[in-house]
Amino acid sequence: MKIGVFDSGIGGLSVVKSLLEHQLFEEIIYFGDTARVPYGSKDKNTIIRYAIEAVEFFKNFDLDMIIVACNTVSAYALSEMRESARCPVIGVVEAGVLATANAVSNNSANILIIGTNATINSQAYEISLENQGFKKLQTKATSLFVPLVEEEIFEGAIIDATLTHYFEHIIHPDAVILGCTHFPLLSNALQDYFGKKTMLIHSGDAIVEFLEHEFDFTQKFETTKLEFFASENPQSLRNIANKWLYGN
Amino acid sequence: MKIGVFDSGIGGLSVVKSLLEHQLFEEIIYFGDTARVPYGSKDKNTIIRYAIEAVEFFKNFDLDMIIVACNTVSAYALSEMRESARCPVIGVVEAGVLATANAVSNNSANILIIGTNATINSQAYEISLENQGFKKLQTKATSLFVPLVEEEIFEGAIIDATLTHYFEHIIHPDAVILGCTHFPLLSNALQDYFGKKTMLIHSGDAIVEFLEHEFDFTQKFETTKLEFFASENPQSLRNIANKWLYGN
Repeated sequence: MKIGVFDSGIGGLSVVKSLLEHQLFEEIIYFGDTARVPYGSKDKNTIIRYAIEAVEFFKNFDLDMIIVACNTVSAYALSEMRESARCPVIGVVEAGVLATANAVSNNSANILIIGTNATINSQAYEISLENQGFKKLQTKATSLFVPLVEEEIFEGAIIDATLTHYFEHIIHPDAVILGCTHFPLLSNALQDYFGKKTMLIHSGDAIVEFLEHEFDFTQKFETTKLEFFASENPQSLRNIANKWLYGN
Repeated sequence: MKIGVFDSGIGGLSVVKSLLEHQLFEEIIYFGDTARVPYGSKDKNTIIRYAIEAVEFFKNFDLDMIIVACNTVSAYALSEMRESARCPVIGVVEAGVLATANAVSNNSANILIIGTNATINSQAYEISLENQGFKKLQTKATSLFVPLVEEEIFEGAIIDATLTHYFEHIIHPDAVILGCTHFPLLSNALQDYFGKKTMLIHSGDAIVEFLEHEFDFTQKFETTKLEFFASENPQSLRNIANKWLYGN
């Protein structure tokens, strides 16, 4: 199986990491639209246009599947991508919803969805979770988390103040959907803030769970061939990938 | 005089505001590349490519001048823009340097330059200020200021923590160059942090000072015709412009 992973930038590497750990694929082509990142503050129509351009890029490869690692794109452009792609297109939002339904058995549990402005405004998670029967949903656009992660600020006074800013009026959640691929890097801070009993739902793990649920993987691949493409500075993306995925 | 004002997004409206207050121009065409904002974290080559595309856009109008309101573009792409433009191209960096030289008479004053990663990495302000004879320069990329302003967070615990994060090891400055069009919105917080004696240099005021120094304005225009263009969601830009420029 040869797949494409698409993200607006580098955040989707956290999804690649989960895919590698589970040895699901023989070859992964990663494309990050680093020249136009971030998508989370952009318009629906712009996001769709960029997403379709990514599908066109992936047509250079003979892919068996495209995984949309970006929550914003998954929330807005999945059906348009499916129309123009020649292979299945899977998004992190549907995966996150399935993972939440599997992990949280009680439909009256409090679920908090956090993401970029665009992801939260789309209501994509809310609508799907309501269809799954969940009744107590809260949402919060936590846009500052993206630049904080990109500045590599994961703890300390700014994080504490930002968590209070966003969450002081939130009813204590039983589960938090990390609706942006940057947010797992703030897992420790979020877990400390909400306490150990609150479950954090991570897009990378969710996508693995979803894939294993939907498809029949008969083979494990000890090594996966990885190729990285970016709309600007691919070398910088490759360096970050090396650091994130292999710790060097 | 009919001029173009270019910015990566909405920040350049603070420059337009200064231009309007001084009634210098008959007509202003504003272009914000809102579909690809922010530029401050992007590559030099990408910034140059986008800047040249903006010059091409301005060729739709018969302009007497292009003002680059974006510090990042001014720092990286001014000479390339000049090569492809049919009219003079003026940038906020050269204006900011002139304003600093006019405002700070003592060459051994401590000058702090703040801006996006790209602007600070370019060393554009440093090199020009050194050429003006300034000896005590400090720089700090304060990238988080941009999303904070876009989230309309101008004061409070996050701002306090962020100011400490960036400036706790900075030698107390006599002047601070606000090297990003977003930063004037944090003037109150910066003035409180550094104290009343520290002078803040604002790109909008600097460009007016520069224009009045370089050109002979014989006429004042009580009304200026304004047109706004954006690479995505021009209506949103026009709404923000109405709010910022006219307070409605």
